[in-house]
Amino acid sequence: MEQKERFPAPAYAENVLAEIFEDAKRLFLDALIEVDIAHAVMLAERGIISREDACQILRALEGMNRDEILAARYDGSCEDLFFYLQQRLSEKCGEETAGRLHTARSRNDIDVTIYRMRLRRDLLALIRAVMDLRCALLDQAALHHETTIPAYTHTQPAQPTTLAHYLLAMAEVLSRDVARLQRAFENANLSPLGACAITTTGFDIDRARTAELLGFEGVAENSYAAISAVDYLTEAMGAVAVAMVNVGRFAQDFLLMATREFGFLRLSDGYVQISSIMPQKRNPVALEHVRALASCALAEAQGAFTVVHNTPFGDVNDAEDDLQPLIWRALHDARRATAVFAAAISHAQFDIERLRERAAEDFITVTELADAIVRREGLPFRVAHQIVASFVRRTQGVIATIQTSGESLHADLLAQAAHKLLQETAREILGRTLSLSPEETRRALDPLNFVRVRGVMGGPSPEETRRILQASRARAELDEGWYRKRTELMTTYPEKLREATRALGC
Amino acid sequence: MEQKERFPAPAYAENVLAEIFEDAKRLFLDALIEVDIAHAVMLAERGIISREDACQILRALEGMNRDEILAARYDGSCEDLFFYLQQRLSEKCGEETAGRLHTARSRNDIDVTIYRMRLRRDLLALIRAVMDLRCALLDQAALHHETTIPAYTHTQPAQPTTLAHYLLAMAEVLSRDVARLQRAFENANLSPLGACAITTTGFDIDRARTAELLGFEGVAENSYAAISAVDYLTEAMGAVAVAMVNVGRFAQDFLLMATREFGFLRLSDGYVQISSIMPQKRNPVALEHVRALASCALAEAQGAFTVVHNTPFGDVNDAEDDLQPLIWRALHDARRATAVFAAAISHAQFDIERLRERAAEDFITVTELADAIVRREGLPFRVAHQIVASFVRRTQGVIATIQTSGESLHADLLAQAAHKLLQETAREILGRTLSLSPEETRRALDPLNFVRVRGVMGGPSPEETRRILQASRARAELDEGWYRKRTELMTTYPEKLREATRALGC
Amino acid sequence: MEQKERFPAPAYAENVLAEIFEDAKRLFLDALIEVDIAHAVMLAERGIISREDACQILRALEGMNRDEILAARYDGSCEDLFFYLQQRLSEKCGEETAGRLHTARSRNDIDVTIYRMRLRRDLLALIRAVMDLRCALLDQAALHHETTIPAYTHTQPAQPTTLAHYLLAMAEVLSRDVARLQRAFENANLSPLGACAITTTGFDIDRARTAELLGFEGVAENSYAAISAVDYLTEAMGAVAVAMVNVGRFAQDFLLMATREFGFLRLSDGYVQISSIMPQKRNPVALEHVRALASCALAEAQGAFTVVHNTPFGDVNDAEDDLQPLIWRALHDARRATAVFAAAISHAQFDIERLRERAAEDFITVTELADAIVRREGLPFRVAHQIVASFVRRTQGVIATIQTSGESLHADLLAQAAHKLLQETAREILGRTLSLSPEETRRALDPLNFVRVRGVMGGPSPEETRRILQASRARAELDEGWYRKRTELMTTYPEKLREATRALGC
Amino acid sequence: MEQKERFPAPAYAENVLAEIFEDAKRLFLDALIEVDIAHAVMLAERGIISREDACQILRALEGMNRDEILAARYDGSCEDLFFYLQQRLSEKCGEETAGRLHTARSRNDIDVTIYRMRLRRDLLALIRAVMDLRCALLDQAALHHETTIPAYTHTQPAQPTTLAHYLLAMAEVLSRDVARLQRAFENANLSPLGACAITTTGFDIDRARTAELLGFEGVAENSYAAISAVDYLTEAMGAVAVAMVNVGRFAQDFLLMATREFGFLRLSDGYVQISSIMPQKRNPVALEHVRALASCALAEAQGAFTVVHNTPFGDVNDAEDDLQPLIWRALHDARRATAVFAAAISHAQFDIERLRERAAEDFITVTELADAIVRREGLPFRVAHQIVASFVRRTQGVIATIQTSGESLHADLLAQAAHKLLQETAREILGRTLSLSPEETRRALDPLNFVRVRGVMGGPSPEETRRILQASRARAELDEGWYRKRTELMTTYPEKLREATRALGC
Repeated sequence: MEQKERFPAPAYAENVLAEIFEDAKRLFLDALIEVDIAHAVMLAERGIISREDACQILRALEGMNRDEILAARYDGSCEDLFFYLQQRLSEKCGEETAGRLHTARSRNDIDVTIYRMRLRRDLLALIRAVMDLRCALLDQAALHHETTIPAYTHTQPAQPTTLAHYLLAMAEVLSRDVARLQRAFENANLSPLGACAITTTGFDIDRARTAELLGFEGVAENSYAAISAVDYLTEAMGAVAVAMVNVGRFAQDFLLMATREFGFLRLSDGYVQISSIMPQKRNPVALEHVRALASCALAEAQGAFTVVHNTPFGDVNDAEDDLQPLIWRALHDARRATAVFAAAISHAQFDIERLRERAAEDFITVTELADAIVRREGLPFRVAHQIVASFVRRTQGVIATIQTSGESLHADLLAQAAHKLLQETAREILGRTLSLSPEETRRALDPLNFVRVRGVMGGPSPEETRRILQASRARAELDEGWYRKRTELMTTYPEKLREATRALGC
Repeated sequence: MEQKERFPAPAYAENVLAEIFEDAKRLFLDALIEVDIAHAVMLAERGIISREDACQILRALEGMNRDEILAARYDGSCEDLFFYLQQRLSEKCGEETAGRLHTARSRNDIDVTIYRMRLRRDLLALIRAVMDLRCALLDQAALHHETTIPAYTHTQPAQPTTLAHYLLAMAEVLSRDVARLQRAFENANLSPLGACAITTTGFDIDRARTAELLGFEGVAENSYAAISAVDYLTEAMGAVAVAMVNVGRFAQDFLLMATREFGFLRLSDGYVQISSIMPQKRNPVALEHVRALASCALAEAQGAFTVVHNTPFGDVNDAEDDLQPLIWRALHDARRATAVFAAAISHAQFDIERLRERAAEDFITVTELADAIVRREGLPFRVAHQIVASFVRRTQGVIATIQTSGESLHADLLAQAAHKLLQETAREILGRTLSLSPEETRRALDPLNFVRVRGVMGGPSPEETRRILQASRARAELDEGWYRKRTELMTTYPEKLREATRALGC
Repeated sequence: MEQKERFPAPAYAENVLAEIFEDAKRLFLDALIEVDIAHAVMLAERGIISREDACQILRALEGMNRDEILAARYDGSCEDLFFYLQQRLSEKCGEETAGRLHTARSRNDIDVTIYRMRLRRDLLALIRAVMDLRCALLDQAALHHETTIPAYTHTQPAQPTTLAHYLLAMAEVLSRDVARLQRAFENANLSPLGACAITTTGFDIDRARTAELLGFEGVAENSYAAISAVDYLTEAMGAVAVAMVNVGRFAQDFLLMATREFGFLRLSDGYVQISSIMPQKRNPVALEHVRALASCALAEAQGAFTVVHNTPFGDVNDAEDDLQPLIWRALHDARRATAVFAAAISHAQFDIERLRERAAEDFITVTELADAIVRREGLPFRVAHQIVASFVRRTQGVIATIQTSGESLHADLLAQAAHKLLQETAREILGRTLSLSPEETRRALDPLNFVRVRGVMGGPSPEETRRILQASRARAELDEGWYRKRTELMTTYPEKLREATRALGC
Repeated sequence: MEQKERFPAPAYAENVLAEIFEDAKRLFLDALIEVDIAHAVMLAERGIISREDACQILRALEGMNRDEILAARYDGSCEDLFFYLQQRLSEKCGEETAGRLHTARSRNDIDVTIYRMRLRRDLLALIRAVMDLRCALLDQAALHHETTIPAYTHTQPAQPTTLAHYLLAMAEVLSRDVARLQRAFENANLSPLGACAITTTGFDIDRARTAELLGFEGVAENSYAAISAVDYLTEAMGAVAVAMVNVGRFAQDFLLMATREFGFLRLSDGYVQISSIMPQKRNPVALEHVRALASCALAEAQGAFTVVHNTPFGDVNDAEDDLQPLIWRALHDARRATAVFAAAISHAQFDIERLRERAAEDFITVTELADAIVRREGLPFRVAHQIVASFVRRTQGVIATIQTSGESLHADLLAQAAHKLLQETAREILGRTLSLSPEETRRALDPLNFVRVRGVMGGPSPEETRRILQASRARAELDEGWYRKRTELMTTYPEKLREATRALGC
C-alpha cells in the first residue's frame, strides 16, 4: 500500500490515458491545431506576443505532420495529446517560444472549444442526412397524391388515406427535427475560448476575434458557464434522441410494410440480403439496421445525460475525455441510420395495386357512408351508425368480393347489390328506404371518394396534399439555405485563419 | 382456453381500465369537457348541427357535476372516462342529441388534444419555477459582485472568482432552459382537433376555430401526423431532461457547500431537518430532495422516450393512457425540484467570510502572479511559471499564514516577506531580482485584485458581472412577457368558450 | 433573503413533505406498524425495556385506527408519517412509554426495513404473474406439438417449426426471469433492522429475532451497508428490466400475429375493443397495453438506477421517499403488463389452419430438401444447394398452388409434378437424375416432415417438444414450491408477531 | 426512384457493412475460427462429413493468417467477415470441401455463439477487476479496525465508526456484485451451436460435443430461444449496471474524501495530475475517471436494453452487429473503471489523524452518551435525550476544544469540565445529578469507546469487523476458486480443440 508510483501509474496509463490518447487523435487533432493557430494569431494581433514569436509558432503548427502524429502510440511520457503537441511544437520552435502560446489560455477552455468544434461538424452531417430523408419522402409523396392506402390505428386498418398524406406526415415531423437540430447547432456553435481555466485572464485578449477565426457564430459569454455548463451537449443529445425515436418509428412502419404478409413495400436489391437457397426470401436487412442503429444512437444520446448526471456543476472532467467519444458515437450512429434510410426509401417501390386493394377492403370506408347518410337524410348520427353497422354485418361476405374486383362492369353490378342490401337494412331500422341513389352509395364506399371529400386543412384530399407538399418544399428550401450558410462557415474559417496568418506577415 | 369472456375481461378491467379511469379523471376531466364545448360551438357555427341541439349539449356540459364524476369508481359498464361522460351527457339531453356531438370527430383527435392541453399547463408551471430559480440566483448575485470565492476544478480550488460570477453562470444556463421549455410549449400548443380518426372528415369543419376556442396558438396541420407524431411530447421531455441535469448539478454544488467541511452555505431553518439530540446537525434535506426529485424527473422524462421507442408510427396507443401519467409525473417532479430549490436559495445565506478566506488560501492566485511577471518583465511564460512554482514550494507554509490573516497591518508585513521570498527565488533562477515592487507582489497575490483585472468579456470583474446581471435581468423581463402572454391565454380561453356559447344564444 | 422561516417552509411542505406523506400512507403504513411491534417485542424479550412498557406500546399499536390515519392530511405539524405515528402512539400510551420504543433504533434502519418489506411483497406478486404467463404458454404449447407454423427471421418466413416449439422458447426465457426475480427477492429479504443510524447500537439487541418476526430470511449484516447499499433495489430493478424486455418482445410478436394481414391470433372478446360502426374491426388493445405497460415498467426500473446514480455511498436520502414510489410503480406496471398478457393468452385462439398453410408456403421447407439430397446422394452441400435453388426458381409459381391445396389427391399429383421439375433441374446441373423417389421428394417438402426429422436436442420434433414441455412443467412445479414457501412466510409472520406478543403476556 | 442498385448499395456498404466488418475483425475473429474448427471436428466425429474433408478444412483453418485478415479493408465483394472467411477457406481447400463445413449450421447459431464467447471473456475480465477492488478494500480494512472516522448521513457527520467497518461495507456490496456477474456468466456460457437457422437440423449432430469443445458449460436448449432470446446479454448488462452504480457511489465518497476541505484521502502520485504552477494542487483525476467511466459503462449497459426493446422476439438482427460493440464497450469501460479504482485504492493513504479528529468533533458521539444515561439511570429515553441535547447546546464551544486535543492530560481536564457541565444540566432538568462518574462521561464521549460497545452483529466493534473481514476473505477465496475454474476452461478448450483434431488423425 505504501509504495510510491510515479505519474502515470501503469494501471492508470493503460486503462485511461492510452485510450484517451487514441480517441483524441481520432476526433480532435485538426481542431486542436486550429485552436492553436487562432490563439496565436489573436495574441499577436493584440500585441500580447510578438509578431516574430507568433510567426515561428504558426509556421511550426502548419508544418505539423498529421500522419506521424496519428501513428504515435501512447507511451506515458506526456499526459495526453495536448501535451504531445506542445512537445512537438517545442521541438520545432524552441521551448520558450512554444511556451508563449500558452499565454492567456488553459486546458479547460481549449477542451470545450474543440468539443464544440467536433460537435457542430457532426450535427451538420446529421442535419444533412435528416434533410435527405425528408427529401426522399417528399419525392415519393409527389408521385402518390391519389394512391389510396389503408391507414392503421391499433395495428388494424381503420380508414383509407393516400400515400402522399402518409409520407407528408413523416416529412412534417422531420422538419421539426431539422429545426431542433439547427437550434442545438446554434447553441453549440459559441466559442468558450478565452474563458481560460474558468475566470478568463488579466491579459487583454479578444474573445470575439478567436470565435470568428474558428467559425463560431458567437461567444459563450460567462466564463464560468463556458467551462462548466453541459447544455451545449445535452441539448444536442436531446434533439438526437427525439429524432431517433421518430426515425425508429418510421422504420417500424416500413418493416411492417415489407413483410410478405403486408407486401406493400419492395426495397431495391442494393438494400436486401438474399438467401442463396431461397431466392424468394428478401430480407429487408437495411431497414433492420436503420432500426438497430437508431436505437443505438438513442441509447448513446440518452447515455450522455447519464454521464453528466449528478456531477457537480464545477466538475468538468465528466463531460470530457470519457464522454466525448460517446457523443460522437451517438451522432455518428444517428447519421448512419438516417442516411441508409434515406437511400433505401429513395430506391424503394410501393406496391400501389396492393395498397389500393387493401384500402378498399375491410369496410374501412363505412365511416364515410354513415356521414353521407347523416348529411343526405338529416338523420341523427347514432341512427346512421346503426344502419351502417347492421349493413356491414349483413354484407361482410358480399362486399369483400365487390371491393377487390376493381372498376369493371362487374363492380357496378356488385355496387348495385350493396345498395340493395343497404336499403333493406334501412327499411328494417327506419321503416323506409334512404333517398341515396345507387351511385351515391357506390361513391360513399369508394376509397378515392373517401379521401377526395376530406379537403379540410391537413386532410388527405389531393388538393390539400399538393398544397402541403408545396409548403414542405418551401420549408426544405429555407433549411437548405440555413445549411448552406453553415457549411460555408465551416469551409471558410480555415481560409480566414490562413489570411490572418498572412496578414501578420508570417 | 375456449371459454368466451365479454368485454372487459376481469383481468383487463382490473389491471388496465380501472387505473386508466382514475388517471383520466385526475388529469384530463376539465380538458375533456372543454373540448366537448368547443366542438359543439364550432359544429353549430358551421351549421353542421342545429343551434338547438348545440344549446342542449352545451347546457348539459356546463351542468356536469365534476365532484360526482371524480367520485365515480370504474365498474366496467363503459370503456373509459370518455364513454362515461357520453353516458352522463345522454342522460341529460337524450341519446340522439348527445350523439350529434360526435359528428366529425373521433377518440383519436380528442385524446391528443387533451394530452396537449395538460402538457402545456404543466410546462407553464415548470417554466414559472425555472424563472423563479433564476430570479433567486440573480437576486443573490446582485449582492456579491465583490465577494471572492474559490472556483473549483477537478474538485480542487483552482482560482478565485466572485459569488456573482458563479451564480450568474447558473442563471445563464437556466435562461437557455427557459428558452428550450418555451419552444417545447410552442410545439405542444397546436390543436390536433379535427384530425378525427386520422384523416379529418368530409364535414366542413373549421379547425382554426376550435384551436382558438381552446387557447391553442395554431393547428397541428397534417392530420396523420396530428394523431401519430409524438415529438410534441418528446421535445418537451428532452427539454425537461436537459433542465433537470442542470438543476441536479447545481444542487450537487450547493450540497457540497452545505457540508460542515466546506461550510459555505447555510440554509434557512425552514429547509433543514434537525436532529433532536444533535442541535448542531443541520441536515440540508431540502437540497437532497432537490437532487432526488430532479433525478426522478430526469428518469421519467427519459422514460417517455423508452415508451414510444420502436413503436410503429401509426400505433397511437403507446403514447396514450399508459404513458401520459408518466409525462405528468416528469413535469410535476421537475417543478417540485425546481420550486423547492428556488425557495431554499432565496432564504439561504452564504458564509462570505469563509468564502473569502478560502479564496485567499492554497495559492490559487498564483496564476495571476505569473501573468504579472510575464507582463512586467517581458519574460517568457515558461520562465515566469518556473519562478512562481519554485516560489510556491518555498513559501507553502509561510504564505498560508499570510493569506488567512485578512487585511490587517500584520498582512502587510507578511506580504513583504512573500515579496522577499519571490525575489530570492528569482535571483536563483534568473540570476537577478524582478522589478516588481512589494506592493505589486501583494496585489498579484490578492484575490480581489485577481478578479478585478479579469474584465474580459464574461469574466469575474465586478464591472463585467454588473453588466451581465443587467443583461440577465433584461432577458428575464422578456421571458416574463412571454409567460404573461401564455398564462393570459390559459385564463382567457374559457371565457372565450363562454362568450361563443352566449353568441349562439344558448 | 434574510427572513427566517420555521420548519417546514411552505414551499418545502407543499412540494415535498405533503406528497411524501401521502406516498408513505399508501405504501408503508402496515410495514411501519409491524416494525414497531417486532422491535417492541424484541426489546422486551432482551430486557431492554420492561414487559409492562412493551405491553402498553403493543396494545397501542394494535389499536391504531388505520382508516383514520389513511384519511389524515399533511399539515406540517410533524415531519412525516413516522413522526405522525409516534404522536398517535404518545397519545395512546404516554410520551414517556412511547419514547422507550425508540431505544436502539433509528429512522434509517426503519426506513430501509419497510422499503424491503414493500419490495418483497411486490416482487412476489410479479413472480406470480410471470409464472402465470409461463403457465398460459405451456398450456397452449401442450395443444400444438404438431401444429406447424412459419418461423420468421429478419421479419421474413424462414423455416417451419411448431407452435409448441415457439411457445416453449418463450416459456424457457420466462423460467430464467422467474429465477432472476427469485434471486432479487432473496437479496431483498434480509433485515437491516438493528443497523440503527448506521453503526448499530450499544444495547444488546437481537437482530436475528426481529428479522424472524418480520418474515425476513436473514440479516443484512454490515450495518453501514445495511443503510447505504442500494443493490437490494437495483438488483430487483435489473431483473424487472430484463423481464420487461422479454415480455415486450413477446407482445410485439403477438401483435403482429393479430394483424389482419398475418391473421394468426384471435383474442377473446374480453380483450378486444370493437368499433361500433366497424364490427369486423377487432383492436387487440389489451396486447397494446401489454407493450405500453411493459415499456413503462422498463422505463421506471431503469429510472431507479438513474436516481441513485452518482450519489455518495453514504447519502441515503436519494434511495428513500422520492425514489420508492417509482420502484413501486415499476413493479406494479410490470405486474399489470404480465397479468393481462397471461389472461389474454389463456383465452386466445390461434388460427391453426392459416398457420399450417403459411408453414407450407414460400418454399420455407427447401433447406430440408437440400439436406435430403446431400444425405441421399452424398453430394457436396454446395451442389445440392445449387440444384434446389434452381428448382425453386423454376417452380416458384407451381409449388405455391401445390402447397396451399392441403392433403388431397390433387396434392399428390402436384407433388409428382414437383418431383418431375426437380429431376429436370438435377439432369441439367448434374447430367443425371437423383435417386430420390417421388415420395421422398414430397416428404422433403412437407412442413410436418420438416419438424419431425428435427429431433436434435432443443429441436421442434414433437418428441423433443414433449420432453421439453415435461421438463418445463417440472421446473414450474419447483418454482411453485419456492413461491409457496415465500407466500406462507408472508402470511405467517404476522401470526408470529401476535404469538410473540401473547408470549410476553400482553 | 426506379434505378436498380446491386447489393450492396454504396450507402448501405459505407454506412453499415464496412463498419460492421471492422467491428467483427476486432471482436470476433478468433471465436469465428474456433467455431469453424469445433463444428468440423464434430461433423467428422459423427460421420456427417468424411475425415478427409474434415482434415482439409481443419488444416486450412489452422493456417489462416490472422494479421492478413485483420488488415483487410471492406470492399463490398462479400457481405461480411463470415463470408470473407468462407472465401479464404475456399481458396485454401476448394469450394466443394469448404462448402461441406456449412452442413447443419447457419449464420444465426454461429453469430449467437461468437457473441457469447466474447461476452463470457469480457465478463471474466470484469469479475477479475471487481475481485481486485474488493481485495484492495479488504487489505485497507485490515489495517484500520480501530481507526475511528465520522460516518456521514445526509452529507453531515452523524456518528463515529471505523475505517474497517466502512470499507467492509463496500466489500460486502462488491461480493454481491461478483455473485451477480458470476450468474450472468453462467447464463451466457451455454452453447447455441446446432440451433442452426432456428429449428436445428435433420442431420444427427451432437450439440453437447461442440459445446464442450468450445468451453461452454452447457447447451442453450430450445433452438428457437437459442437464436431469439436476448436475456443472455440483458442479464449481463443488468449486472454491469448494478455494479457500476455501486462503483460510482464509492467513487463519489472517495472524491469527497480527497477534497482539501475533507482531506481524508491522499492518492499516490501515480494517480494524480499536478499543475506545474500550483504544486500543492493534487487533482484526483484518476478517481474522476472512475466516476466518468462507471457512468459510461452504466449508460452503455442500459443502452443495450434500449436497443432490443420493443423488437419482435423473432427479430434477431437488433441483437447482432450494431448492438454487440455497445455491449463490448459497456464491459470494457466497466473493467477500466474498476481496475483503475482498485489500483488507486491499493496505493492510496488515509489521513488517520484527521479522520480520528473529525470522529471526535461535532458531538457525534452523544447518541452514546444518551444511551449510557438510559442504561445507567434507568431514565426513559426521552428524558435522557433532553438532558443530552441541553448539554450539547451548553457546551458546544467548550467540547470542541476537548475533543480535538487528543488523549493528553489536558484532555482529561477538559473531560472533567464536560462532566461538570453535564451534571449541571441534569440538575436543572431532573433536579438531581446523574450517577455517572467523570470517567464514565469521558468514555461515553470517546469515539473509540463508541465503536467498541457496538459489538452487535454487523457493528463497528473491532471484534466484529475482524470476524467479518475473515468471513469476507473466505468468501473471496471461494470466488477465486470459481474464477480459476473458468479461466482454466478458457485456456483449456483451445487445447481440447487441438486434441480432437489430432484424434481425427489430421
